[in-house]
Amino acid sequence: MSEMHAIRRTRLRERCSAAGSAAALISRPANVRYLAGAAPRDAVLLLGPDEDTLVCPGPLDDRAPGGRLDESVRLHTLPGSAGDPAVAAVGLLTDRDVPSLAVEEHHLTVSRHRAIRSVAPQVRLGDLGGGVEQLRVVKDEEEISSIRIAAEIADQALGELLESILVGRTERHLALELERRLVDHGADGPAFPTSVGTGPHSGRGGHRPTDRRVEEGDFLSVCLGATYRGYRCEIGRTFVIGTAPADWQIELYDLVFAAQRAGREALTPGTACRDVDRAARQVLASAGHSEGLPRAVGHGVGLEIDEDPQLAPAAMGKLDACVPVTVEPGVHLPGRGGVRIDDTLVVRPEADGGPELLTITTKELLAL
Amino acid sequence: MSEMHAIRRTRLRERCSAAGSAAALISRPANVRYLAGAAPRDAVLLLGPDEDTLVCPGPLDDRAPGGRLDESVRLHTLPGSAGDPAVAAVGLLTDRDVPSLAVEEHHLTVSRHRAIRSVAPQVRLGDLGGGVEQLRVVKDEEEISSIRIAAEIADQALGELLESILVGRTERHLALELERRLVDHGADGPAFPTSVGTGPHSGRGGHRPTDRRVEEGDFLSVCLGATYRGYRCEIGRTFVIGTAPADWQIELYDLVFAAQRAGREALTPGTACRDVDRAARQVLASAGHSEGLPRAVGHGVGLEIDEDPQLAPAAMGKLDACVPVTVEPGVHLPGRGGVRIDDTLVVRPEADGGPELLTITTKELLAL
Repeated sequence: MSEMHAIRRTRLRERCSAAGSAAALISRPANVRYLAGAAPRDAVLLLGPDEDTLVCPGPLDDRAPGGRLDESVRLHTLPGSAGDPAVAAVGLLTDRDVPSLAVEEHHLTVSRHRAIRSVAPQVRLGDLGGGVEQLRVVKDEEEISSIRIAAEIADQALGELLESILVGRTERHLALELERRLVDHGADGPAFPTSVGTGPHSGRGGHRPTDRRVEEGDFLSVCLGATYRGYRCEIGRTFVIGTAPADWQIELYDLVFAAQRAGREALTPGTACRDVDRAARQVLASAGHSEGLPRAVGHGVGLEIDEDPQLAPAAMGKLDACVPVTVEPGVHLPGRGGVRIDDTLVVRPEADGGPELLTITTKELLAL
Repeated sequence: MSEMHAIRRTRLRERCSAAGSAAALISRPANVRYLAGAAPRDAVLLLGPDEDTLVCPGPLDDRAPGGRLDESVRLHTLPGSAGDPAVAAVGLLTDRDVPSLAVEEHHLTVSRHRAIRSVAPQVRLGDLGGGVEQLRVVKDEEEISSIRIAAEIADQALGELLESILVGRTERHLALELERRLVDHGADGPAFPTSVGTGPHSGRGGHRPTDRRVEEGDFLSVCLGATYRGYRCEIGRTFVIGTAPADWQIELYDLVFAAQRAGREALTPGTACRDVDRAARQVLASAGHSEGLPRAVGHGVGLEIDEDPQLAPAAMGKLDACVPVTVEPGVHLPGRGGVRIDDTLVVRPEADGGPELLTITTKELLAL
């Protein structure tokens, strides 16, 4: 583990040097955790020319979220939790003749940036941009293994729910029960707020559970995910409540399933991200569903639930191997409900068997 | 309701004009909700010279968290969820001859600030600072009423837990059960992650629940809160598990209770915030507990769980009437555990009966 974090920091340091920065200040929590192994609340990581320091507002203890600090990172704790760790970190540079520092301008606020500048006016501040986020896109097998376990946990939680009685229970209760089961099975917690939509609420991405109860004949859409060792996954399924789905339900389900399959099958290294989106989207569009579709057909997952790459119409870039992504098209018919099917997969070359499906709960249309 | 939000915006507009800004861009979600009634994800509020506009990345629907949009605010939705609403909002100004705009530099990132500047280079950007946060400190009776209901919900959830069997259950399960009960009783959700600490974990602020099980003889510390209509409260209690507390437990409990009472009794309009902290802190210090104490003895609550005022040693400013705050001193003895007692109260003048206690669960040392 230790070595892995050090290698990541070396890669970032090389990027910074190439861009003319002697040091870097990492403030975005997922980036801090990626490089240092731990991201206690409000901690920042200073990548210096010769040593790396995690600056924490308080003492590091077993309460600290975000893993174990890499041994090769020095820990600097602020006395009495006072002040901004970012400002304190830059203060550490002032007597070390560092001419330039790259910061995360997409994360630091204007106020913090100004405070940093005033504590070290002689240091030229540059922009690290999404440098760490770019490193995070391709995962190593240890990261993928954590996402795989997160997916197993989510599959288990969902599977148990399907064996229970659903009619009469509210969306909110079903969502809470799923989250409890995630934790029961060893998740750090939910990867994002669990979404449960019944009847007219089904098929909407990001639906917040309400007090509506499950009724016979409803579509029921569920979207959940687990976090395991900081890594997140996502699974979404739609079911029918009752003995037999109606014709319109079968038709809509088959359509979304076909779109989702088209998206999954497009996940090969070298494919343009926007082409994955298009593969799924055009199945829906050819059946007349072009309005109200999701903004993106999928996105990367890892230390955050929504990270690069975006599988969206205007996305730039191509897929690499070992990139975990979601594929999650859906159609929602206002007033009637809809279908959403969501998997987490890892992009793999054809020679390795193609995309690796992590969320293995069946995608047959189950009548519950 | 509508009128109330309009009055708040008028007060802010007056502050901005006085500071030389013709318009203001509000991006911090709690501030957007305070002024517009609703804060859909990533939405920003533009306070123009003659009209106010909420700029949303997607259509407003009943999924939108954060209440109902004030009718006197114009809604502007971005097509296809594209781009940064803050940039789009400033774009609306370009043909309206607005010379200056105040932004929330403590919330906007450097990148977003730059993007705003480039879309409207002729507009002079100023800093609104914590202008909206300052308006939010003193609550109106409708806001206090929401916090009061949130406190009732938290009291109910906690009371039910105390009637159940606790020995043998894990911290994580107790925390999840409390959160489920909050929702059962009508909360929007937990106000913050519920903390349950047993045995050596008891008495630590912000302890994250583990798989440790409740044992006979333990201290059990619980800290939870509900959100109701966006408003948050906090309650913390410590109990003893078993028939009779040990002498050291009674002694420590009485000490923290005395410190918490001293803090509560100091809550009068006009008192310096730091004096409330000192009142509680010196009770603990006089008994030899000066290390490892919380950073602050309390803080304001409202649309966020931790907002101004801070009741801390270095805090500036004085208390006003109608300010809801927590008072939550604690002592944690490493390896043994500790006590934390936390209430939400509203500062009221002596003539109105003094501080109003919202979280009314008993603070006697209960043996469960």
